[in-house]
Amino acid sequence: MVKASDFKGKDVLSMRDYGRKEIDFILSEATKMVKVAEKPSTLCSGKVLAVVFFEPSTRTRLSFETAMLRLGGGVTGFSDPSASSVKKGETLEDTIRTVECYADIIAMRHPETDSSERAAAAASVPILNGGSGSGEHPTQALLDLHTMKYAKGDIDGLKIGLCGDLLYGRTTHSLALALNHFDVELYLISPKELAMKEDIRRDLKMKVNEGTDLAKVIPKLDVLYDTRIQKERFTDPTKYEELKNAYIIDPVMVKKGKKNLVLMHPLPRVNEITTDVDSMPNAWYFRQVKHGVYVRMALIALALGAVK
Amino acid sequence: MVKASDFKGKDVLSMRDYGRKEIDFILSEATKMVKVAEKPSTLCSGKVLAVVFFEPSTRTRLSFETAMLRLGGGVTGFSDPSASSVKKGETLEDTIRTVECYADIIAMRHPETDSSERAAAAASVPILNGGSGSGEHPTQALLDLHTMKYAKGDIDGLKIGLCGDLLYGRTTHSLALALNHFDVELYLISPKELAMKEDIRRDLKMKVNEGTDLAKVIPKLDVLYDTRIQKERFTDPTKYEELKNAYIIDPVMVKKGKKNLVLMHPLPRVNEITTDVDSMPNAWYFRQVKHGVYVRMALIALALGAVK
Amino acid sequence: MVKASDFKGKDVLSMRDYGRKEIDFILSEATKMVKVAEKPSTLCSGKVLAVVFFEPSTRTRLSFETAMLRLGGGVTGFSDPSASSVKKGETLEDTIRTVECYADIIAMRHPETDSSERAAAAASVPILNGGSGSGEHPTQALLDLHTMKYAKGDIDGLKIGLCGDLLYGRTTHSLALALNHFDVELYLISPKELAMKEDIRRDLKMKVNEGTDLAKVIPKLDVLYDTRIQKERFTDPTKYEELKNAYIIDPVMVKKGKKNLVLMHPLPRVNEITTDVDSMPNAWYFRQVKHGVYVRMALIALALGAVK
Repeated sequence: MVKASDFKGKDVLSMRDYGRKEIDFILSEATKMVKVAEKPSTLCSGKVLAVVFFEPSTRTRLSFETAMLRLGGGVTGFSDPSASSVKKGETLEDTIRTVECYADIIAMRHPETDSSERAAAAASVPILNGGSGSGEHPTQALLDLHTMKYAKGDIDGLKIGLCGDLLYGRTTHSLALALNHFDVELYLISPKELAMKEDIRRDLKMKVNEGTDLAKVIPKLDVLYDTRIQKERFTDPTKYEELKNAYIIDPVMVKKGKKNLVLMHPLPRVNEITTDVDSMPNAWYFRQVKHGVYVRMALIALALGAVK
Repeated sequence: MVKASDFKGKDVLSMRDYGRKEIDFILSEATKMVKVAEKPSTLCSGKVLAVVFFEPSTRTRLSFETAMLRLGGGVTGFSDPSASSVKKGETLEDTIRTVECYADIIAMRHPETDSSERAAAAASVPILNGGSGSGEHPTQALLDLHTMKYAKGDIDGLKIGLCGDLLYGRTTHSLALALNHFDVELYLISPKELAMKEDIRRDLKMKVNEGTDLAKVIPKLDVLYDTRIQKERFTDPTKYEELKNAYIIDPVMVKKGKKNLVLMHPLPRVNEITTDVDSMPNAWYFRQVKHGVYVRMALIALALGAVK
Repeated sequence: MVKASDFKGKDVLSMRDYGRKEIDFILSEATKMVKVAEKPSTLCSGKVLAVVFFEPSTRTRLSFETAMLRLGGGVTGFSDPSASSVKKGETLEDTIRTVECYADIIAMRHPETDSSERAAAAASVPILNGGSGSGEHPTQALLDLHTMKYAKGDIDGLKIGLCGDLLYGRTTHSLALALNHFDVELYLISPKELAMKEDIRRDLKMKVNEGTDLAKVIPKLDVLYDTRIQKERFTDPTKYEELKNAYIIDPVMVKKGKKNLVLMHPLPRVNEITTDVDSMPNAWYFRQVKHGVYVRMALIALALGAVK
């Protein structure tokens, strides 16, 4: 039986650390936060979150900051390592051991894959991984799940497509691992060159269908999770142009899907979803952002022992 | 009859959107904020302001942030677009639709003239224009009016001089448009090369006197609003030096004016007002900064529906 | 008789401004803050701290910000002058006179030695010097004293070693001046090239022993305050390498000292204390960081008249 106290003082590092019960519990706590966010809260009054961001971010940093503010806590930190002691040659471990003297909890983004584990080993306060290089982005996976559950009522039974760059996109890695715990069917749609990263692919336990043709697959899907194809990954620009155009999602493409298709995207987008899709009821990618605040409120409150 | 609820959920984009009654109402609310700022307030508890600043600013950003803190709210955002998703090619509209998932209200500065209108069209939360390129800076105009009213009791009946760079200075544009709604006489003092921008000039409805000689005009004025002449606008450096020196305001110049002349400046100044003027009772340019907090408190509280 | 009201509205600029009674009073207030920090406080509710940092800093800025948050106050400011009006040619005095219109108190770091005095002369709100060039860093000296007192019960009677770069290290300057008011014996351990700055050295009133050999001195010490030797100060790289190695503090070196030796360092460190010392009970350099929050809470609360 999972309970709130199990999360007290705990880090959030990787989706690999959570089973179905833990995920369900976090999602259920996040749903409670919808109400908490509506009025002034004192759940985390007197507590301080430090954001320690070694890479640029709007979305994730502001989401963590807002989550803490809505819980009644305060925020300090940095979003630009050039204005910090890192410049003076300080190790990540020393920076973390310093920052934990200020803050009750730390949200971190760092370019190295093992950064959040290193930070967690050094710290006595909880570390929330806000993106570790091309590795994991567990709070994004949890907000993606929360959005799906909110949109569809239940994640079990869904046919879910992951589309775009499945090789380098860390959000699809964390999400696919998380979906292992649900009764879903997965459709991986990508150019062959950007097929799902092998060490993630071989760990997937659900039924998985792989393909390259979005138009063919989209009618089967309940949820389509799109990602950006990054031009810089291609050596042959002609190849890039050809593939890129196969994955432009416009109203015509959306209408090939089910009426209630839920279209998600971790953002930022460049042009892979056209802006005339934004006003369609299927467009969930901005609403998704809001679910990030609820999920991060839940994760902060749980780690600080602020919910019973 | 203007009332607080008229401003609830509304943007603050341009002085062209306000008539005399709206301006009077905002100024009157700002005056109430002098008292509110004196002790802890919960008017905006649980609310979050996002500052979204695409250009450098000390004054305007800190003024908005302080205003929200003094109302009991929280602040998130960014002041350096290089640490944000803009770097990844995100459009202004997408950034705004993301940030509004975090914040209840957004204060924005952006280099493009139509930026605040674009943001307002994309957003469902109120947008406060904190400077849009060479276009408008309405919260500055409102704080300028509030300072004049506070210093002189009434704006109607005043003879007001605008001095310096009237061509490129957005603060004089917004202020001149705002003064259209008052019974004032305007004196425009500038080098011919920097005369009031034509599309503003032709919209002015009050009596306007134009000239180039500050010493000749200053004895007539109740208020002198000075601005910086920007060297980079001149092709002929000799011309710049000549004109620049005609507009240095020192104690001798101030004493040519009325005893109760109110000297204002949007700041930062470089050398156009000498520092030995700072201690004269006529120097209102630092006090002006404080009025910015009251005005922005009023604008935030009104837009959030926090005042009745 | 020193009392809280003596500090109300006062700047914190230099350790030279404090006698023993003032120091004792501040340290005693800081000790009270340990309890205050444990739960939500309203001591400074409704007050705003501005951090005005013209140089990079993690530790000092976050420490001031956390201190204000734990007192229930709000924080605004900037940590990167390139995103401020300084870029437009504004003087320090004008920046300060502007910022004091927003904030009730200002914490500043600036590369120039006389910067905090200049700021204090311009400001009507209290200025807290968070580091002024190679000059002073008084809040660091106070937190160093607080750590010693907490670790040893009493500062009087201690034998204290200052080790490393005593010529350029501003923390050792402020600390040595502060220790003048205590009954301590001082050991200065440094390469001859980096001996204690002469204008500090000649003002020291306690018994002072100078030497270059840490291993010889360490058995006598109760407290060893280590600092980084900066490579860039040496013209002869061979000399640097030779001296640098004489001051590497590893477990073997620590064990040459007394069992209860307190090892301190202002951080960041590079390699002058090896990481296997971190887990020894003698390692106080991270706990030192926490004392910085208590001391800065006390200084802020005293300057704002928030404690009786």
